[in-house]
Amino acid sequence: LVKVKLAFKIWLESDEGYVFGEGPFNVLQKISELGTLRRSTEDLGMSYRYAWGLIKEIEHNLGVPLLKTHKGGVRGGGGSVLTDEAQELLKKYQLAEKTFLEISHSLNAELASS
Amino acid sequence: LVKVKLAFKIWLESDEGYVFGEGPFNVLQKISELGTLRRSTEDLGMSYRYAWGLIKEIEHNLGVPLLKTHKGGVRGGGGSVLTDEAQELLKKYQLAEKTFLEISHSLNAELASS
Repeated sequence: LVKVKLAFKIWLESDEGYVFGEGPFNVLQKISELGTLRRSTEDLGMSYRYAWGLIKEIEHNLGVPLLKTHKGGVRGGGGSVLTDEAQELLKKYQLAEKTFLEISHSLNAELASS
Repeated sequence: LVKVKLAFKIWLESDEGYVFGEGPFNVLQKISELGTLRRSTEDLGMSYRYAWGLIKEIEHNLGVPLLKTHKGGVRGGGGSVLTDEAQELLKKYQLAEKTFLEISHSLNAELASS
């Protein structure tokens, strides 16, 4: 009996190819919590410039904006809000990840016992 | 509505890390059909040396042999048979891939309609 477990990686694709995976997902989710890209990247220990580039690339590939950015605001610090399209992508990714995690847990239980 | 579909990649891991994914799976499956590593790599358009290295690396990582190799035989060409452990790994990978494919199909149907 060889002790192995299943590992996986998921991502979303459009007809044109790769849209986004775990990295962009984490950034978008953090922005939806914290309301700014700057603080989100700090919180994730990620380069602001890199995250900004990622988001611009996805927006370009999809042809839709992911962030609504506003300057100023309550504390004068500006901020970002996810567009409806970005929220929809987040929800789809989350559903897929949750489902795959559940399946991999039950498969791993099965693999361990077989 | 953003048109996206789910894509995924799976692999097997032991406690020490990566064991094997799609490439080695295809090689082992082909060997189980054709009975020789040489013909399997030709059939897959893969370098013999590379495939051999892959298999040796997996055997090393797992601490179990994957192939029983015999010289000569009926047509004098030698050949390789999968060990029980290799057959078990193949079966586990196949089960995981089949399950993930089914789930991704039904998730994609769900994502397209939501």
